[in-house]
Amino acid sequence: MTNDTIEKRNRQWVLASRPAGRADESNFKLVDAAVPSIEQGQALIKVQYLSLDPYMRGRMDDVKSYAPSQKLDEVMVGGTVGEVVESKSDQFHRGDMVVGMGGWQEYFVTDGAGVRIIDARRVSPSAYLGVLGMPGVTAWYGLLRIGRPKVGETVVVSAASGAVGSVVGQLARIHGARAVGFAGGAAKCDYVVRELGFDASIDYKSDDVRAAFADATPNGVDVVFENVGGAVFDMALARMNTGGRVALCGLIAGYNGQDIALRNVRSILVNRLAVTGFIIPDHMDLWPQALEELARHVASGALKYRETIATGIENAPKAFIGLLNGANFGKQLVKL
Amino acid sequence: MTNDTIEKRNRQWVLASRPAGRADESNFKLVDAAVPSIEQGQALIKVQYLSLDPYMRGRMDDVKSYAPSQKLDEVMVGGTVGEVVESKSDQFHRGDMVVGMGGWQEYFVTDGAGVRIIDARRVSPSAYLGVLGMPGVTAWYGLLRIGRPKVGETVVVSAASGAVGSVVGQLARIHGARAVGFAGGAAKCDYVVRELGFDASIDYKSDDVRAAFADATPNGVDVVFENVGGAVFDMALARMNTGGRVALCGLIAGYNGQDIALRNVRSILVNRLAVTGFIIPDHMDLWPQALEELARHVASGALKYRETIATGIENAPKAFIGLLNGANFGKQLVKL
Repeated sequence: MTNDTIEKRNRQWVLASRPAGRADESNFKLVDAAVPSIEQGQALIKVQYLSLDPYMRGRMDDVKSYAPSQKLDEVMVGGTVGEVVESKSDQFHRGDMVVGMGGWQEYFVTDGAGVRIIDARRVSPSAYLGVLGMPGVTAWYGLLRIGRPKVGETVVVSAASGAVGSVVGQLARIHGARAVGFAGGAAKCDYVVRELGFDASIDYKSDDVRAAFADATPNGVDVVFENVGGAVFDMALARMNTGGRVALCGLIAGYNGQDIALRNVRSILVNRLAVTGFIIPDHMDLWPQALEELARHVASGALKYRETIATGIENAPKAFIGLLNGANFGKQLVKL
Repeated sequence: MTNDTIEKRNRQWVLASRPAGRADESNFKLVDAAVPSIEQGQALIKVQYLSLDPYMRGRMDDVKSYAPSQKLDEVMVGGTVGEVVESKSDQFHRGDMVVGMGGWQEYFVTDGAGVRIIDARRVSPSAYLGVLGMPGVTAWYGLLRIGRPKVGETVVVSAASGAVGSVVGQLARIHGARAVGFAGGAAKCDYVVRELGFDASIDYKSDDVRAAFADATPNGVDVVFENVGGAVFDMALARMNTGGRVALCGLIAGYNGQDIALRNVRSILVNRLAVTGFIIPDHMDLWPQALEELARHVASGALKYRETIATGIENAPKAFIGLLNGANFGKQLVKL
């Protein structure tokens, strides 16, 4: 089968060097490769959207982490949505839209492992990288399986306007809890309350964070969904009620080597807290249930989401650095 | 009923002042009171053993904790074993041995609430303040209900020669796990391995703690039972395996205001740990089961214990300060 829509080259971002502290664009290198040819049982995918996620920063370091370290000079790993443009597989047909770990490149070949066909007729295909993808399932699992908020309890989430945090707060509301979010700047704080329906938001960049947080949590805190770590996490721990639960999902504050030491360790003891770290690849068995619930809430309009979309694969590193610095507003994507 | 063995005075230790940082003997004051008279339904207990425990230091501060703060000029709260010397209660008879929260004093009156009769014929009555009391049940609950070690897993416990830690390590061995203990000094480290049967011990005062710990935990760490906090806790977190459990029981390192910040927060995320704080008064329903199991192991000789006994109520504060500094060897008691 030949396909004249396939371009000659496959541009790829590889990891050129490991960051010493803060990551920057010079850690990445854009290389040209040939578009790969496929063999029997394979399909060629043209990437339409690349997902940028905080976990990628962790993989850039050469230390033990929950995912293998990103290898130097290899294509950056990442979630993608794309279209089948050529197929020698019974599983895929030309024109199928799929989601899978295609990486930071324009084309990739799959034998089907880890790649599944999506229904992009009623929602944007990009949603499968956000609210109906890894970030959405992460929010669902951490909030409902670890946090387990009861009606009337208070849930606090950091990075509240982000891909995960925005779903956490909305799910908390759907389950009858009070949702309080930390976000950076007035625009994001406003969005979290007015658009997403959180009960309160706190600008972590403001001067009176502690007072604002106390005002927003008059009955203390029962559940913390932590994406960031550092000073905000410590402050949240200090306001927790007896028997509180912490779902530790990310420590983006520490990715560039900053101090994320936890000072309120005593609160874990005094308040008999359960602090549980998790990563969503451990819980693949729950994805169907999570996605069914999330899709239902998206369809009903109860679950809203927002995307920040950079255009062109050449802009992926810049958009990624922006994500680490909080420049995005909702799910960060690159449209190829 | 009159009883000529009752002395005229009841010496009591009250909290005279709250410590600014390190607690010392000047924070306590010995006062003379009259031996109380009893009314219908009450019994008078003459204290034989007073229990000294690290939690008492937390109560000396005027901050939110799991137990109400110790009030100034009131008798220090504490567990005691004693003998009924006078009774107008159907529940108690003269000569009965009882355990209860009598406090730092020579006599107390009870209406029976929180006081129960013990069988002191086969074990020393003092055991009901240690291995068959709050410390033993604390070890049992934290290890078996939070830590849940599997056969062949590695359990690490701090303050391993203490009243709680010594039971944790022995129970871990009984349940087929590898027991590794931190203790201060060669004598305690030796005791933990030779007498209590731990697989290894590490002197936290030695120079090469990190290397010794790595040697003692060749397969990493699955369960941490934490009594101390601070640098040793951080080191243990760094060696934990995926899915590890931490039972946070005490933070004695922080009681005098030292820095107990946790620096390896990232390990909780990367290794998907569950860190759970607990205090044993929350779990009174499990005491009968715990005590039955502990008594069985003591009777069989599988569970050994050691006591450090100060003599005379006048020495209670000195023995307590010693406990906070690790001067005790096993359960710290005062014999009156």
